[in-house]
Amino acid sequence: MFDILLSNMDETENPLYLQIYNQFRERILTGDIQSNTRLPSVRALQLQLNISKTPIETAYQMLVAEGFVYSKPQSGFYVINMDEYESRQQNKQPDYFLNTPTPDELSVKKKYIIDFDPSAVDNEFFPIRTWKKMLHHVLENYSNRIGEYGDMKGEHFLRKTIANYLRNSRRVNCSPEQIIIGSGISYSITILTRLIEGIRYVAFEEPGFEPVREQFLQNGYEIIPIEVSNNSFGIKKLEESGAQMIYVTPSHQFPTGRVMPYTEREYLLHWANKHNAYIIEDDYDGEFRYLGKPIPSLQSIDHQGRVIYIGTFSKAFTPALRMNYMVLPMRLLKKLESIHHFLSCPSRVEQWAMHAFIEQGHWYRHIRRMRNKYRKKHFTLMECIQTHFANKVEITGHSAGLHLQITVKTRLHEKELLKLAADKGVRVYDFQKMRINKTQSSYPSIYLGFAGIREADLEKGIQLLKEAWSHSFIE
Amino acid sequence: MFDILLSNMDETENPLYLQIYNQFRERILTGDIQSNTRLPSVRALQLQLNISKTPIETAYQMLVAEGFVYSKPQSGFYVINMDEYESRQQNKQPDYFLNTPTPDELSVKKKYIIDFDPSAVDNEFFPIRTWKKMLHHVLENYSNRIGEYGDMKGEHFLRKTIANYLRNSRRVNCSPEQIIIGSGISYSITILTRLIEGIRYVAFEEPGFEPVREQFLQNGYEIIPIEVSNNSFGIKKLEESGAQMIYVTPSHQFPTGRVMPYTEREYLLHWANKHNAYIIEDDYDGEFRYLGKPIPSLQSIDHQGRVIYIGTFSKAFTPALRMNYMVLPMRLLKKLESIHHFLSCPSRVEQWAMHAFIEQGHWYRHIRRMRNKYRKKHFTLMECIQTHFANKVEITGHSAGLHLQITVKTRLHEKELLKLAADKGVRVYDFQKMRINKTQSSYPSIYLGFAGIREADLEKGIQLLKEAWSHSFIE
Ligand SMILES: Cc1ncc(COP(=O)(O)O)c(C=O)c1O
Ligand SMILES: Cc1ncc(COP(=O)(O)O)c(C=O)c1O
Repeated sequence: MFDILLSNMDETENPLYLQIYNQFRERILTGDIQSNTRLPSVRALQLQLNISKTPIETAYQMLVAEGFVYSKPQSGFYVINMDEYESRQQNKQPDYFLNTPTPDELSVKKKYIIDFDPSAVDNEFFPIRTWKKMLHHVLENYSNRIGEYGDMKGEHFLRKTIANYLRNSRRVNCSPEQIIIGSGISYSITILTRLIEGIRYVAFEEPGFEPVREQFLQNGYEIIPIEVSNNSFGIKKLEESGAQMIYVTPSHQFPTGRVMPYTEREYLLHWANKHNAYIIEDDYDGEFRYLGKPIPSLQSIDHQGRVIYIGTFSKAFTPALRMNYMVLPMRLLKKLESIHHFLSCPSRVEQWAMHAFIEQGHWYRHIRRMRNKYRKKHFTLMECIQTHFANKVEITGHSAGLHLQITVKTRLHEKELLKLAADKGVRVYDFQKMRINKTQSSYPSIYLGFAGIREADLEKGIQLLKEAWSHSFIE
Repeated sequence: MFDILLSNMDETENPLYLQIYNQFRERILTGDIQSNTRLPSVRALQLQLNISKTPIETAYQMLVAEGFVYSKPQSGFYVINMDEYESRQQNKQPDYFLNTPTPDELSVKKKYIIDFDPSAVDNEFFPIRTWKKMLHHVLENYSNRIGEYGDMKGEHFLRKTIANYLRNSRRVNCSPEQIIIGSGISYSITILTRLIEGIRYVAFEEPGFEPVREQFLQNGYEIIPIEVSNNSFGIKKLEESGAQMIYVTPSHQFPTGRVMPYTEREYLLHWANKHNAYIIEDDYDGEFRYLGKPIPSLQSIDHQGRVIYIGTFSKAFTPALRMNYMVLPMRLLKKLESIHHFLSCPSRVEQWAMHAFIEQGHWYRHIRRMRNKYRKKHFTLMECIQTHFANKVEITGHSAGLHLQITVKTRLHEKELLKLAADKGVRVYDFQKMRINKTQSSYPSIYLGFAGIREADLEKGIQLLKEAWSHSFIE
């Protein structure tokens, strides 16, 4: 049944383990080897193929690492359940920090007609022509610097430009020296954890942005979850927690979408000042606000250097660039020199291009354009949901950002809703993973990102969701 | 004397601390406030300016952080010695991981007519036109992916292309799954330290590449220095060390330039297999070899997955791209999924461009071209040194790579040679910083990088060095 073919010299010159791995993978993906099948034992395959154990063990390890196979202690290796696999792929999406690259991803992707991926942004309106012009311009004009390492904190003039932009748009108060340009929030957190000293307890929004939480956990910090919902934030718990740092997303809480009210911001700063604590303000989609008047960033009302502000080009521009920035309070700069071995800035060429893009006014134009675009998508989506679902869902977290939350009046669980939606070709998101303490609230909450979907497809997506779920609604 | 002008609302709206900082910085840089001057105490300035202490303290802290001022306990703040400052800038260069971005850098740079910077590469031959074409091509053709996060391990097809390149050029044996594309060696080491378990003792070449050594130290590893010279490597010490990992640069030892002989490579693998240890093979300039026949990479003769291979685009292409890659042995892949929050790949756009660049054959053409170019620079430099210095210097570490070592027959110290060279407008490098245990060998060793210098300038540089040093030669 498991006729694995080996050649010592196949045309690709693949080593044995790779040949074995490839053949198993392909047959699992095509369904030739079915879900939950037990693979032959290493010993059995060894006898069959007449080779040493090592390549077989290696291939199996690789299948496990890539998620096609799991091992049961004392029993052997089993093909994973493809249904589970798909739902795992779905659950995995929210931590968009590791999309498996293997063909399976494509095959899973293809199954969806519409994917409300909260991490995706619009690609139709990406200013390709202008960006190309910027790249062209800087490669011609900075070619004399292309042979050199630059400043690993980021190019100085880009940091200056970002400082200005942040002052104008988010009232962030900083000098270029305080800015560190990086390749994403995981990099910023890596650097930050090198700079802070004597901190052990980190308060974290619950639910909250799991990748950052995991990073703190794996760095040995203790996480204190502070419950946040559409209309509350566990201030009392924070006060008693002994936390020395807190991570928050005040512009548009991830994932609930809540906007932190002004008084709470003041309270947070008060708390930080009182305890000499730090606040990480992750302003990932602060550029987009639809309802209510803008509330100043925490950094802008911090007068004692308690806020670490983190922003990104991933939302307002593109996540493909992998460029973000962190604004450090002055007192954290002191140690920077001694940890500079950890610094590694993103491409200088793209930093030059970004500088030119902003300086020449394209950035402000782009942001205005995207604001309008997303505002339209946002209201279209809201309208569709209201039209099709009426009072069967409650929409929250929709006054800012690029995703919203719906709570569905059904007795089904999140997972079941996801499955039903997937059967119709629609992918929606369940952010249970964003919680440390799993709880089951009365009705399931589902997340829809709209930035990456064409406006014309929004209605179709909602219609399909209605078809998928309507039989389960509670009257 | 220290008439600092403050406005609550100057045209830049700079906060007070920034105004104070800027004024001091400018006046230090222009020499208006001289080296070693004691700055007014915080209290004195406070009285003079009639403001609170905080902005003054902040400004002083910032001046310290940026290296313009140092504080003497119980005494106050002093402007640094500008000579020392410059030599510090020079010593700093070797860890090219933090070039201060401030105007001072430019002013220091300008002083050098010729800078034998070992981190710089040729910028005249960077294929601007072709690279622009690639960027153009991928922005047009991949625009449908620009709204999405990709695989944080790196784009799969680029990893495949790199695997092929490494197989062809360095005989590295790996599948794309084993490759992680990153933004430089500091990133690779950050990821690696997350994957290895139970390792505490890391052997390190002495002298060796300080940024990586520092990273291990700051991550809590213990470093065991293994002495390496032009003709020896401390095998015996390694054998007895209890080390569980070793970092080596076998193609062209950094900084001595030694090429590790084949038998030593075999020995190292033998050692690693025997102790279940890992070898980090940093092949940073493995593309360039001038004398002797190429020796296979350690990874290519490793059959038990003991070698972690790290390569970079910084030498053969440009450090401005900030792109490198690490090849992990299979057994280290297992944990990858669980640490994926730490991953952050470089720009996807440039990854696409690099893929196209390699696939279309430009990469191989470029490497051939640079090999010829650097071979010529290398031999020109050797010739100049021999002509001008004859038997007053010994050249070593010159059979590969982009820098070489000269040992000068003088009674002066490294620092003095650097200073004399600087007075003539030439910058050369002293790699004492690359040692943990400072030793003073009989004659001082100086390093010269040649990749970033135009061929026509090499002779001039050497001539100036001769003029600078000749009075000190020992007969
Ligand atoms: C809560 C949150 N923070 C930060 C980010 C931005 O991450 P990065 O700048 O690494 O792309 C995201 C991305 O989706 C996010 O959801
Ligand atoms: C010994 C050594 N390793 C690695 C590198 C490459 O570093 P990166 O890929 O981070 O540019 C260098 C750069 O000069 C180096 O000297």
